Amino acid sequence: MHGYTANKDDVLKRLRRIEGQVRGLQRLVEEDTYCIDVLTPVSATTKALQSFALTMMDDHLQSCVADAIAQGGEAAQDKITEASQAIARMVRS
Amino acid sequence: MHGYTANKDDVLKRLRRIEGQVRGLQRLVEEDTYCIDVLTPVSATTKALQSFALTMMDDHLQSCVADAIAQGGEAAQDKITEASQAIARMVRS
Amino acid sequence: MHGYTANKDDVLKRLRRIEGQVRGLQRLVEEDTYCIDVLTPVSATTKALQSFALTMMDDHLQSCVADAIAQGGEAAQDKITEASQAIARMVRS
Amino acid sequence: MHGYTANKDDVLKRLRRIEGQVRGLQRLVEEDTYCIDVLTPVSATTKALQSFALTMMDDHLQSCVADAIAQGGEAAQDKITEASQAIARMVRS
Repeated sequence: MHGYTANKDDVLKRLRRIEGQVRGLQRLVEEDTYCIDVLTPVSATTKALQSFALTMMDDHLQSCVADAIAQGGEAAQDKITEASQAIARMVRS
Repeated sequence: MHGYTANKDDVLKRLRRIEGQVRGLQRLVEEDTYCIDVLTPVSATTKALQSFALTMMDDHLQSCVADAIAQGGEAAQDKITEASQAIARMVRS
Repeated sequence: MHGYTANKDDVLKRLRRIEGQVRGLQRLVEEDTYCIDVLTPVSATTKALQSFALTMMDDHLQSCVADAIAQGGEAAQDKITEASQAIARMVRS
Repeated sequence: MHGYTANKDDVLKRLRRIEGQVRGLQRLVEEDTYCIDVLTPVSATTKALQSFALTMMDDHLQSCVADAIAQGGEAAQDKITEASQAIARMVRS
């Protein structure tokens, strides 16, 4: 059981929508669309991926991290450090 | 002719690789992969999209914007404003 | 007691260094430094602020959020939601 | 003459406002403000720095880069490459 298990269908639907956005970008390039009109949906796709990551991180904190803290001990500390590192990768990407 | 026309095949190859990354994320979710092990490739995919946008913007400046400036007039000014707005969307996404 | 209380001196030192970076930017502008040579330290200052935010968020998760979860109840849930919203502001800025 | 020369006073005013925001962060830490209430203005300060960088880049494209392109030759190409690298630093910070 992970943070997203309960919403697995929604998570997959969201990723499939992002896949559709990336395929849409390919179509735009194939049709020789003007650069800026490709770049605008690229930014929208980047935002969609970041929102996806934020939802997944929230689920992770609500479940995996919260469970580890409730159980206490070193595992809790490790889970928080691991989450902080993932947050850093999100902020820097 | 747009900035990316000469490298259209490379551009498409790059987008197909990003599409593959997004499908890889779906596989990870389907296999109930641990949240953090999904989030790490999500950040890598976001970075790939941003690098793609940076290459496309560089091509755009080198061709469309440079051509408009070489021709001069109001169109040049408009092209720069349009590029700045696209850069702002990239920075904010 | 907050997440950063134990390291308050370090936190302040770090913020004073960032203040120094911003004053350095003003000096560069006053001396009519070339745009790109102003923009490079602007990006470094932005990165310094983001690193600062990441450290503060890690401290916050390790202390305030962990304490709330250890005590349980609705307060824990609220703390996690609040942290997720702050993470979203970091990712989007 | 650089892109920002004509607006130098505004540019300096903007940087002094950002310096004030960073000093405000120090005050919040000195007064033991709750982590999240420090993190919110940290994100606002990061956004202010990014907006500053975007304005400076737009000025740079409108003047230095446009001038180099109007004169043509290798210098034009170098200016665009230099600008693209600065845009990449903005996107990645």
